[in-house]
Amino acid sequence: MTRLVLCAGTTRTAEIDGISAAGADPELMIHTPSADSEILTYGRTVRSPVVPVSPTGCPTPAVVTRAVVERLGLETTVVDAGVAEPTGAPTVTVGANAGDDIREPDPVPSAPGAFAAARQFGRALPDDELFVAETVPGGTTTALGVLTALGEVDVLGPAGDAAEAGVVSSSLPENPLGLKREVVAESLAASGLSPGDAAGEPTVALRRAGDPALAVVSGLAAGALETDTAVTLAGGTQLVAAAACLRHGGYDRRLSLATTSFVAEDPSIDLDRAADGLELSVTVTDPGFTDDHPAMAAYNAGEAKEGVGMGGALALAERASVPMADVRSGVRDVYDRLLAEADREVPAL
Amino acid sequence: MTRLVLCAGTTRTAEIDGISAAGADPELMIHTPSADSEILTYGRTVRSPVVPVSPTGCPTPAVVTRAVVERLGLETTVVDAGVAEPTGAPTVTVGANAGDDIREPDPVPSAPGAFAAARQFGRALPDDELFVAETVPGGTTTALGVLTALGEVDVLGPAGDAAEAGVVSSSLPENPLGLKREVVAESLAASGLSPGDAAGEPTVALRRAGDPALAVVSGLAAGALETDTAVTLAGGTQLVAAAACLRHGGYDRRLSLATTSFVAEDPSIDLDRAADGLELSVTVTDPGFTDDHPAMAAYNAGEAKEGVGMGGALALAERASVPMADVRSGVRDVYDRLLAEADREVPAL
Repeated sequence: MTRLVLCAGTTRTAEIDGISAAGADPELMIHTPSADSEILTYGRTVRSPVVPVSPTGCPTPAVVTRAVVERLGLETTVVDAGVAEPTGAPTVTVGANAGDDIREPDPVPSAPGAFAAARQFGRALPDDELFVAETVPGGTTTALGVLTALGEVDVLGPAGDAAEAGVVSSSLPENPLGLKREVVAESLAASGLSPGDAAGEPTVALRRAGDPALAVVSGLAAGALETDTAVTLAGGTQLVAAAACLRHGGYDRRLSLATTSFVAEDPSIDLDRAADGLELSVTVTDPGFTDDHPAMAAYNAGEAKEGVGMGGALALAERASVPMADVRSGVRDVYDRLLAEADREVPAL
Repeated sequence: MTRLVLCAGTTRTAEIDGISAAGADPELMIHTPSADSEILTYGRTVRSPVVPVSPTGCPTPAVVTRAVVERLGLETTVVDAGVAEPTGAPTVTVGANAGDDIREPDPVPSAPGAFAAARQFGRALPDDELFVAETVPGGTTTALGVLTALGEVDVLGPAGDAAEAGVVSSSLPENPLGLKREVVAESLAASGLSPGDAAGEPTVALRRAGDPALAVVSGLAAGALETDTAVTLAGGTQLVAAAACLRHGGYDRRLSLATTSFVAEDPSIDLDRAADGLELSVTVTDPGFTDDHPAMAAYNAGEAKEGVGMGGALALAERASVPMADVRSGVRDVYDRLLAEADREVPAL
C-alpha cells in the first residue's frame, strides 16, 4: 500500500518581507499549513479561518493533491511538524515546535528530537511505499539554509554562481534569490557556522538553518528507508534538501523524487544536477494546466509551482493511468468547493 | 459520505480494581485507547507498546471495526478525547485531558471546553453522515455516573431496581454492577450532587461524573445534528449515555444507535427501554461469530461485547451487503497481523 504523509510546519523565516507567496497576506500565511492539512484530509477547510491563496488568487497546491487523493482513494496522514495555528485535520505528534526565524542563533531546537520521533514513526508505518511531502511557508529559504550548512551550496560565493543558482525554487514568479542568500548568510553567522560546517550532521543543519517540517520529512524518510519501505520525496526544493540530509546522514538506499513540471522548468533550480549529486531518480509530471481556470492559469504564470505533495500526487495519478483531464476536472471541483466554503459562516458559540 | 469518528480517552476510574476488561493488565490498560486508535487507522499498532487483549486473550473490538473499515474503504478520524499515552494515530485536538477517578470532586474539568470544541468540529465536518464511537476503559462506569447525574437512573435506589439494572453493560462476562453503583454514589457525593441534579445540564454531568471521551462524543454529535448531518451513535452503554446528554441538552432531532448483538443480548442493559426513553432508532447486528477462533469465542463467552464503533461498523457492513463471512475472515486477518506485529522488535535509538 502507498501512503502520502504530509509534514506540516512553520518557520518565522516566512515573515521576512518578500520571501514567500504561500498565503494572500503575511499575517494569514501562518494558517497555511493548518489549512493545507485540512484540505488534504477533508477537501475543505474545517477550523482554519482562511483558504490559502496567493496575492494574485493562486490557490494552494493542496487543491491539486486533494483532487488526486479523491480520484485514487489514496491514504494520507498528516504529521504535526510544527504548525503554529490549530488545525482540524488529525495529526501525528512527533514533538516538533514552530520554527523561529533562521537568523536567530537556535531557531529549531526541536529538530533533533522531532527527527528521531519521525524516524521511529517512519520505521513503524505498515506501508510498502511512502510519499513524503511538506507544507511550510518560507521553506525554500530554510532549504537553502540547510543545503548551505551541509556544504552542498555556498551562498557566500559570487552571486549567480552556478553552484547556488541551480538549487532553490520559489513560490513566487520572481525568485528572491538575493534576499534568500542574505538571510541564509545571516543564519549561519548567528549560529557561528561556515558553509559546510554541518556536513555529515543533518540534524545540526536542520536545527541551525532549517525548519521543523524539513526535520520531520527527513526523519520520516530515514525510518522508512531503514525498514525497506520505498520512499518518494514528493516535492521540489525542500525535498531536494531532505535528500541531502539523508545522504549526509549516511542513508545510501534508493531514493526517488517526484515533482511538477513547474519546478522542473524553473531556471532557478537544476534538477538534473541535484539528481546526479544526490543519486535521486526524478519523476516530473505535467498536469497540462490550461489558462481557462484561475487556479491553473496562476501555475502557468509561475506561481506556487509545487507543495503539499503535488508532484508526487500527479506521479501517482499517472502511474494509476488516471487521465490528466480527470485530474484537472478534480482540481476545478475542489477549487469550487473551497471557494464556496470560504463564504460559509461558522457561528461563534 | 459516511465517516466513523473515534473518540479516544481515558479515566482513572478504570484503575479501580475489577471495573474493566479493556486490557490484559490494569497497568497496560492505559494504553488501550492509543492502541485502538492505531489499529483503527493502520490495522496494527505503531507506537503503542501493547496490543489490547483481555486477561483471557479476547482482543479489542478495534479488530472487528478495522476489518470492516478495510472491506468498505470507510473514512475514519480519531479525536484525542483525553488519551494518556502517546499514539501513532493522527488525532484531532479538542482540548480534552485525561479524566480523573470520578470519586474525585472535579474529575473532568476539561469536559465543557472539549464539548464546545468537539461541537464546532462536528459542525464543520463535510460529511452527510457520522458514526460516532468511543474507546475509554472504565467507560461503562462513567456512563452510569452521567446517567445518574442526569436523573435517568438512580443508583441510590434499591439494588436490582429495574430502573438501574437495565442500563449499563460491561466488558466483563460478569458485570460488576454493585461496584459500579458504589463508585457512582461516591462520585456524586464528592461533587455534592444528588441523582438528577444535573438534569438538563449535560456538561455538568460529564464534568462531575463522566469522562472526557463521553464529553467529546456528545459534543461532536451535537454539532453534527445542528448542521443536519445524520448521526449514528456507534456503541452500547456509553453511547446510550451520550444520547441522554444530547436529549438533556435539548437536541431533539432523529438519533440512531448501532450496537452489537452481544450488547443487545446482555441482560444488564435493556436497549428497548433506552430506545423508547431517549427516542433512539436502534440497529443491532450479529457478526455470527463462531467458536473456532479465539477472538470470536471470547465474544461468544460474553467478553468485550462492543467498543471502538464495532456495532456501527457491523451495521455499515450489513448496509453495504458485505457478507458477515467476509467480515469474519477480515477479523481473522487483522487478528493474525496484530499478533505477528506484537512480536516485532522496535529498536531503541
